[in-house]
Amino acid sequence: METPWEYRYAHRMQAMKSSFIREILKLTQKPEIISFAGGLPAPKVFPVKEFQEAAHRVLENNPEKALQYGTTEGYLPLREMIAKRSARYGLNVRASNISITSGSQQALDLVGRLFINRGDKVIVENPSYLGALQAWNAYGAEYLSVPMDEEGMITSELEKALRRGAKFIYVLPNFQNPSGVTLSLKRREELVKLADHYGTPIIEDDPYGQIRFEGDHLPPVAVVDSKFREQNGSDYNGNVIYLSTFSKLLAPGIRIAWAIGAESVIKRLVQAKQGADLHTSSFNQMAVHEVSQNDFIDKHVEVIRATYKERRDAMLEAMDELFPPEVKWTHPEGGMFLFVTLPTELNAIELFEKAVEKKVAYVPGAPFHANGGGENTMRLNFSFPDPDTIREGIARLGQMLKEEIYTK
Amino acid sequence: METPWEYRYAHRMQAMKSSFIREILKLTQKPEIISFAGGLPAPKVFPVKEFQEAAHRVLENNPEKALQYGTTEGYLPLREMIAKRSARYGLNVRASNISITSGSQQALDLVGRLFINRGDKVIVENPSYLGALQAWNAYGAEYLSVPMDEEGMITSELEKALRRGAKFIYVLPNFQNPSGVTLSLKRREELVKLADHYGTPIIEDDPYGQIRFEGDHLPPVAVVDSKFREQNGSDYNGNVIYLSTFSKLLAPGIRIAWAIGAESVIKRLVQAKQGADLHTSSFNQMAVHEVSQNDFIDKHVEVIRATYKERRDAMLEAMDELFPPEVKWTHPEGGMFLFVTLPTELNAIELFEKAVEKKVAYVPGAPFHANGGGENTMRLNFSFPDPDTIREGIARLGQMLKEEIYTK
Repeated sequence: METPWEYRYAHRMQAMKSSFIREILKLTQKPEIISFAGGLPAPKVFPVKEFQEAAHRVLENNPEKALQYGTTEGYLPLREMIAKRSARYGLNVRASNISITSGSQQALDLVGRLFINRGDKVIVENPSYLGALQAWNAYGAEYLSVPMDEEGMITSELEKALRRGAKFIYVLPNFQNPSGVTLSLKRREELVKLADHYGTPIIEDDPYGQIRFEGDHLPPVAVVDSKFREQNGSDYNGNVIYLSTFSKLLAPGIRIAWAIGAESVIKRLVQAKQGADLHTSSFNQMAVHEVSQNDFIDKHVEVIRATYKERRDAMLEAMDELFPPEVKWTHPEGGMFLFVTLPTELNAIELFEKAVEKKVAYVPGAPFHANGGGENTMRLNFSFPDPDTIREGIARLGQMLKEEIYTK
Repeated sequence: METPWEYRYAHRMQAMKSSFIREILKLTQKPEIISFAGGLPAPKVFPVKEFQEAAHRVLENNPEKALQYGTTEGYLPLREMIAKRSARYGLNVRASNISITSGSQQALDLVGRLFINRGDKVIVENPSYLGALQAWNAYGAEYLSVPMDEEGMITSELEKALRRGAKFIYVLPNFQNPSGVTLSLKRREELVKLADHYGTPIIEDDPYGQIRFEGDHLPPVAVVDSKFREQNGSDYNGNVIYLSTFSKLLAPGIRIAWAIGAESVIKRLVQAKQGADLHTSSFNQMAVHEVSQNDFIDKHVEVIRATYKERRDAMLEAMDELFPPEVKWTHPEGGMFLFVTLPTELNAIELFEKAVEKKVAYVPGAPFHANGGGENTMRLNFSFPDPDTIREGIARLGQMLKEEIYTK
């Protein structure tokens, strides 16, 4: 039956489609299908007992705060803890530089709300994170895509994009979703220099930074930026808005993330958040703060790293052995994803059904490309399935790819 | 120090001001001030033990779901439970008609995102809920305000507004925030008839419906609407989008609310929510579902009603005794607020400082008036302070008002 609402959608809704990935995820939830399509942390690394105890303690010691309305910017002790942890990575900020958000997706949405007028250009890596594109499409963003290589965004291409004029640059420097690629230190420095030259600020999205299995930790772009302008006498001058989350360090079902920026920007972000959801669950913020006592995150992140490294290794080994040599893939040093490039004549969207017939699933890479292309790419997740399942799934996928490549 | 962000705010942010009420709340947090300014539930009615046990059980029985990413529309058993509870009030809907939201504030924001183009008109009660105005201002809404009397929105005035053309009508039928007024059954029927006549749909915001202390429960506008078109053979046809929340029934710090609409509308709302925050905390949804087992809410709501009734009575009695006769106020049959009208020559914003000198605070009514006016009104909250505190606060406020009225 038709309701009067059907004729009343705002123009921004005309463009909004349900996430292609979410639709795919629904298709692949059958238990017999091995899915590399999701982006889920491994449930075995969830700190269940710790959350159980933290929830108990929070409601024992401070129920009137945990169950009551809270401030929009978030629970102060949690923001202070985040400031302290950030300092370890060279990001010298205070609680007033931090707002809690309901997952990083909300931070991306609020960034859109704060800065994007219809038709504004945003510089993104190609490919880039679909959730950001989806959030900003609602505000009418257009994209300037910068190609990547194994060191991340190619800076000479970035300069071309900067000369076309953009509101800001969006970058996922560590183990990028979807590519798994890390922006090298040299490229971080070039990015910061170029951004400064063109007066264009940066959104740094860093959900996986601490999930590094090998190689050296690289300083956040925000820190590289601060060093670049040290002559200003400030550790952190707010040119870079830095986003991160507890979703990958603790658990995504809790929906606690944060944004770091100049005080004036955070103030505006908090205003926007007030209209969006008033505040993020007090209980969850306090539980995350409680769980994190006594450096729990530092110990826990070791467990996550070991678990995901084993899975990544299983995937890479199986691919080396079972994928046809015409297929190429990235070798992420951390995170949850790697990216596969097929021979150009193959189309990963068209192959998707054949994969599901072989009882294996992936996410086609094309939707991650803001301005088209990438039809011959796919994203594989290695954090969720266990090593044996990964091996079996790669065998199925390899079989399908061999049939496609050698029978045509 | 200035960052490049300062020059990059989107036009929607030019209009966005920090909520006046939130600024006032900060002023009134000193312990010596008796505040009627907030809108907080009484902490003594929070079901702390029950949440503690529910959190424990959820993490014991289903940790992999509670801590993992969930679906955007929300936890199915919770949505089924809401459908079942809604049926009791005559709202015959299915889980597919329901989306969970991160507080009702998010539902209001998503309604704005779905339906409001810059310059679109929304019909609101005068006064109306500030949080809705704030959410929709970000989308460039304009307002047609309909005056109210003791039966709610005056329907003859509503018709005038409808003839001016509006995207939708926004109504809080039960113990409205800020006025405390309830839309009578006759007016509900007239509203539905007029809305149908002009083909204009309705947003029904009902956070307090079950917190009724006296008088008979009235059917939701959504139910009146369905009855009106029963000839269509449908119980619920989606002309009314109905919003409610667990914030007042259980606890606001948990941030779990819901929207009911036609399946097609809920699908779009879920798309919009996907970009806004991906989904609402799985853990909190499951905890609310767990707490609500064995009709806990029905028992618990009795405790809330008794507590708030005692407080409302304390406030009304004290006002009768201690307020000058020139001052008028509403007599809410439920909810958390009542509304005071001063002699027209008094300005509640100007008097605010004098009240704070007497160590009592309220919210001036003017900001609740979408198109100006209401300078001589104020909103008083009776759910948070206990009866003795209420009496003392009303004495202080009465003293201030007498001084103003009789010394001028």
